[in-house]
Amino acid sequence: MAAAIDPARVIADLRELERLTGNERGAQRVCWTDGWLEAREFLRAGLAELELEAEIDEAGNLWARLEAADPDATALVLGSHLDSVPDGGWLDGALGVMTALGVVRAHAASNGPPPRPLVLVDWADEEGARFGRSLFGSSAFAGTLDPGAVRDLTDADGRGLAAVLADHGVDVDRAPDCGRRREELGAYLELHIEQGPRMEARGLRAAAVTGCAGVERVRFSFFGQASHAGTTPMDMRRDAGLAAAAAALTIERIPTVEGGVATTGELRLRPGIPTAVAGEATLTVDLRHPDAGALQRMLDSARAAADTAAEERRLGVSEDPVWRIEPIPFDPALVGLAREACAAVAGEPAELESGALHDAAEVARVLPAAMMFCPSIGGISHAREENTDEADLAVAIAAFGALADRVLTA
Amino acid sequence: MAAAIDPARVIADLRELERLTGNERGAQRVCWTDGWLEAREFLRAGLAELELEAEIDEAGNLWARLEAADPDATALVLGSHLDSVPDGGWLDGALGVMTALGVVRAHAASNGPPPRPLVLVDWADEEGARFGRSLFGSSAFAGTLDPGAVRDLTDADGRGLAAVLADHGVDVDRAPDCGRRREELGAYLELHIEQGPRMEARGLRAAAVTGCAGVERVRFSFFGQASHAGTTPMDMRRDAGLAAAAAALTIERIPTVEGGVATTGELRLRPGIPTAVAGEATLTVDLRHPDAGALQRMLDSARAAADTAAEERRLGVSEDPVWRIEPIPFDPALVGLAREACAAVAGEPAELESGALHDAAEVARVLPAAMMFCPSIGGISHAREENTDEADLAVAIAAFGALADRVLTA
Repeated sequence: MAAAIDPARVIADLRELERLTGNERGAQRVCWTDGWLEAREFLRAGLAELELEAEIDEAGNLWARLEAADPDATALVLGSHLDSVPDGGWLDGALGVMTALGVVRAHAASNGPPPRPLVLVDWADEEGARFGRSLFGSSAFAGTLDPGAVRDLTDADGRGLAAVLADHGVDVDRAPDCGRRREELGAYLELHIEQGPRMEARGLRAAAVTGCAGVERVRFSFFGQASHAGTTPMDMRRDAGLAAAAAALTIERIPTVEGGVATTGELRLRPGIPTAVAGEATLTVDLRHPDAGALQRMLDSARAAADTAAEERRLGVSEDPVWRIEPIPFDPALVGLAREACAAVAGEPAELESGALHDAAEVARVLPAAMMFCPSIGGISHAREENTDEADLAVAIAAFGALADRVLTA
Repeated sequence: MAAAIDPARVIADLRELERLTGNERGAQRVCWTDGWLEAREFLRAGLAELELEAEIDEAGNLWARLEAADPDATALVLGSHLDSVPDGGWLDGALGVMTALGVVRAHAASNGPPPRPLVLVDWADEEGARFGRSLFGSSAFAGTLDPGAVRDLTDADGRGLAAVLADHGVDVDRAPDCGRRREELGAYLELHIEQGPRMEARGLRAAAVTGCAGVERVRFSFFGQASHAGTTPMDMRRDAGLAAAAAALTIERIPTVEGGVATTGELRLRPGIPTAVAGEATLTVDLRHPDAGALQRMLDSARAAADTAAEERRLGVSEDPVWRIEPIPFDPALVGLAREACAAVAGEPAELESGALHDAAEVARVLPAAMMFCPSIGGISHAREENTDEADLAVAIAAFGALADRVLTA
């Protein structure tokens, strides 16, 4: 099996995709738009060169399959997503799809078929940029998409999700039917940019991803008393804004005990004017940790921080859930092979967990799955400035190819 | 001079004014609207009963004058403002005007003219509710109104100040001409609700006001780095929102050293979403103190707090001025007489400074001036719930009448 991937060709494909579907503001491949269809046309053309046909499933995911010597072997799936956020980066998602194409191309060109079928997938609407629902196609595949919960979502122009998807041949109510493909598939691998600064800081070019952190996102509302900034003595105030500020600063310290990350990126005061003590404040807390127990303790600590801040200022406090997902560990055997591939190609058996969610987190619910990361310069993503040094990209693409080969022959 | 004011009649006038110009949401006497004109019609009718005519000056202020035995004596001016915020309270401003009418009525009904001319004034647009410029009429009178700075202000419907005032017979460029009246006037007194909770807390029914606190209002902008809530390790963050929170909590402590009050009622994060570390934050700080030196030290301390918070998180910080006014002390002799009147009528020579601004602060620039406060239940104002116990109102009205008599005969 001499099927070494050609990283330079993958990078050239990514540059061509950027030229076709990007502009001076960045990548314009929002799902269910013309830019996204154009990206898929480019992918179809690449598959056609290998005499492979693309098939669209009930959720809008694109699949292609290179048959194996043994038609009964379960397939190895490689993929990611071509869709981008508006004004996005050239690598987010596209790297994984074009690298999957590179692996398939290498095997198509080698002497004889691969030992297991090799399947490429381009998940539909990972970003949720148009309708606000991320991981659409992969969650449909994994059985966690509730069509009733997304059917009435609308885009910024007021167009409904169901109607827009119907224009693309997708019946939202039938989207979960794509899960029937699971039985012929044996494992899933995805290469992605880190979208954070840790690999750059550690000088890593490729790393195995151990899983996706769980998320607890809750909104605390503090209820004090709005009053006149000039006439209310300091000791008679019940300032909800300062309680929220104090809670945020306490919550920032939670990771020093538990690990993980804690973010308070949304803080709103009411009435929110310079001449009034804030009578009400809402603080949204986003907590992430790869360990479910630690994540629960983080949430307990955040609640205690909100309660203490409210008590100290004689305020009321309430809590509303915003979103949550449990930590999703990747398959230990696949993660081990990914570490080995990183060691062999990039020189170090590096691993880290993902703080962001990816299609692989949904897929991992129903198939053995793992990911590999390459570094992001400055940790920047979801922006035109998103980038990775081409030498680093080439190493990560080669490491991912080596991982695919290890899984195929394992 | 047997000219005792009738507090019950003043309260009855205020109730009738409330009935005429309020609704279920509160007082509707925004300046330069029909509700305000209706309030003035009610005032004119009250003056007409005393055979006094109202005169509107170049800034839209309403004046009436009860002549004295000695026509060359300088007049004592009593007044406040009939205009309200939208959905305002029944007492804010109206109390002072109707009490002034009560004092004039008492003297008009007594045997013989007062020893000095007695002038009633209803200042135009104290609240600035429609165009955002407070103290319009009194600042025109005091010579601190710059017509060029207000001419192009617009209301929520886009109508310009100059055109709306012209409809009311006011040429904004000539508004400062009303200052010519100063020379025939000798002193100014104003009764107002406290709009804060201090008198209620101390059990006071009337108090002399020593002056209006100065205000320093500045906006600090913190510049960090927006980044992904899931992928950015805590020790690599440059969170502008947390820097602003830390600064706000430090600024809250400044009055424990300097006295005065410090408020951070406006705090905005960018991008301001739960999934991103805030890259930018603006914090508006409102500092008030009756002493100019202490106010300057408060501002220095707030700047130090912002600088320290920024340095600790490796952020940039900048400062923009929003508004400032120096502390305005009232006339010590008049304040002394007000204390005596409070002692005689309300049982205690109470005094406090005002944290809010009033027409008297503008008038004090050009005439000896002082104020008297009555308590506000719960400190609430600028709302339908604004209220004062009628027994307390009656005492404060009587005390203000006694103060006017003391000044007339001093």
